[in-house]
Amino acid sequence: MALLNDLNWRYATKKMNGNVVSEEKLNYILEAARLAPSSSGLQQYKLIVVSDKALLEKIQVIAYNQSQITDCSHLLIWAAWDSYSEHRVSERFNEMMDVRGLPHNTMDAYKNTIMDLYEKAGQDWQAHHAAKQSYISFGMAIAAAAEQKVDATPMEGFLADKLDELLQLSGSGYRSTVILTLGYRDETGDWLAGMKKFRLPKEQFVTEVTLADAAEITESVTIDLNDFKLK
Amino acid sequence: MALLNDLNWRYATKKMNGNVVSEEKLNYILEAARLAPSSSGLQQYKLIVVSDKALLEKIQVIAYNQSQITDCSHLLIWAAWDSYSEHRVSERFNEMMDVRGLPHNTMDAYKNTIMDLYEKAGQDWQAHHAAKQSYISFGMAIAAAAEQKVDATPMEGFLADKLDELLQLSGSGYRSTVILTLGYRDETGDWLAGMKKFRLPKEQFVTEVTLADAAEITESVTIDLNDFKLK
Repeated sequence: MALLNDLNWRYATKKMNGNVVSEEKLNYILEAARLAPSSSGLQQYKLIVVSDKALLEKIQVIAYNQSQITDCSHLLIWAAWDSYSEHRVSERFNEMMDVRGLPHNTMDAYKNTIMDLYEKAGQDWQAHHAAKQSYISFGMAIAAAAEQKVDATPMEGFLADKLDELLQLSGSGYRSTVILTLGYRDETGDWLAGMKKFRLPKEQFVTEVTLADAAEITESVTIDLNDFKLK
Repeated sequence: MALLNDLNWRYATKKMNGNVVSEEKLNYILEAARLAPSSSGLQQYKLIVVSDKALLEKIQVIAYNQSQITDCSHLLIWAAWDSYSEHRVSERFNEMMDVRGLPHNTMDAYKNTIMDLYEKAGQDWQAHHAAKQSYISFGMAIAAAAEQKVDATPMEGFLADKLDELLQLSGSGYRSTVILTLGYRDETGDWLAGMKKFRLPKEQFVTEVTLADAAEITESVTIDLNDFKLK
C-alpha cells in the first residue's frame, strides 16, 4: 500500500514554508523522473531545476503570481522537443544502441516507420506528442516526492512562451511543458491543506467492457510491430 | 528507495506468459490511476478495462498485432475528454464542491477564467490538454504495477480512431489516448527482457539554471491566481 498511501497523503500544495529539500531527496525525485518510460524510449524531454530565488521571482510573475513559486525549495521544469526530426531521432537511437551493444542501423526500419507517421501528423501534433511523454515523467516525480514526504505542486499555470524566452529555450528545439514546485507545506497558511481530496468514485472512473459492448469495425492495420524486434 | 527500485525493475514487456493478475492487484493499480492529479482537479479522463480475450483479439489487429495485447491479463485504456465545455467543467466542479461542502458557485470566477483560456486555445488544443492529464494517471498506474511486481507495457502503438469506433467512444465526448497491458513477463520469450535499460545520463537530462543563465523579458501576466482561493 506504499504508493497508494503516498498518493493519498499528497495534495497540490498552495503555500510552502520555505524549508529546503535535501540534495539527497532532490536527487531521488530527479532519478524517478529520469527513469520514466517514453514513446519508443526516445526520452524526448529534459528537466530544468531552479532554486535561485532571484530567478524564481522572475518566474513567479509569469506564473500568475502563485506564492509556491517563491516559497518552494526547488522548481522543476519539464521541457520537451518541439518537433521530431530524422537527425534527432537517429542520435537518440544511436545512444540507445551503444548502451545495448548493437549496431547503429538496428533501429533503422522502425525509425523510418515512426518518422513517416510523425511527419504525416505535423509539427503541432509532434510537439504535443513529445509533451505527453514529459507528463509521464512528471507523474513519476510527483509519486517520488510523495514517497519522500516532500510536498509538490503540479502546475500548468504559467505562460509557457514567456518561460521559454526567460530560460532561453526559444530556438533550442525545446518547449517548457509543465512545472513542479518541491518544498514543504505551510499547513496553517495553505487554504487547500484542510480540504477533502476530490476524485471521481471508482464506479464512475472505471468501466469494464467486453466484446458484447463493442461495435463491428473494419480492420485496417498495415504495419506489424513484431517485424521490429531487436536482435 | 522503493519507487526507484520498482522503476529499475520494470520494462516495457513485449511478451507476457498469460498468467492472470489478481483482482486485488488490479484494483490497486486502478486506484493509483484514480488518485493521480489533473489540471484544475477536473479528472478529464476515464479508464476502460478489458480482459475479455475475444475483445482483446479485436484490439490486437488495430494495435499493430502486438502479442502482449492477447498475452496480457488486463488491458487498461485511458480515454480523455475530446474538448472542454462550460457544462462539462461545471458539472465536475459541482461534484468537487459537494465533496468539500462548498456552494456550487464557489469556483465560478476560476471556471470562467480557464474556460476563456481554453476557448481561445481551440478544440484541438483542448483534446491534447485533456490527453496530457491522462498521461499523469498512466504514469501512476505504471509505478503502481511495478510496485506490485506486475509487468506492464505502456503503449501508444494503436489506431486511436479505430479503437474509439470499436469501443463506441466516438461521439461520446471521449477519445482513447494511451493503453497499458498488465500481466507477467515471459522471460525467455521476450526479446527485450535481457536488454539493458537506456536512459539519458543525469548530466544530460538535468540542467540547473540561475538568474545568470536567464534572458531579460517583458512581463505580461494579468491574472492573479491568488484571487481564486476557495473559502
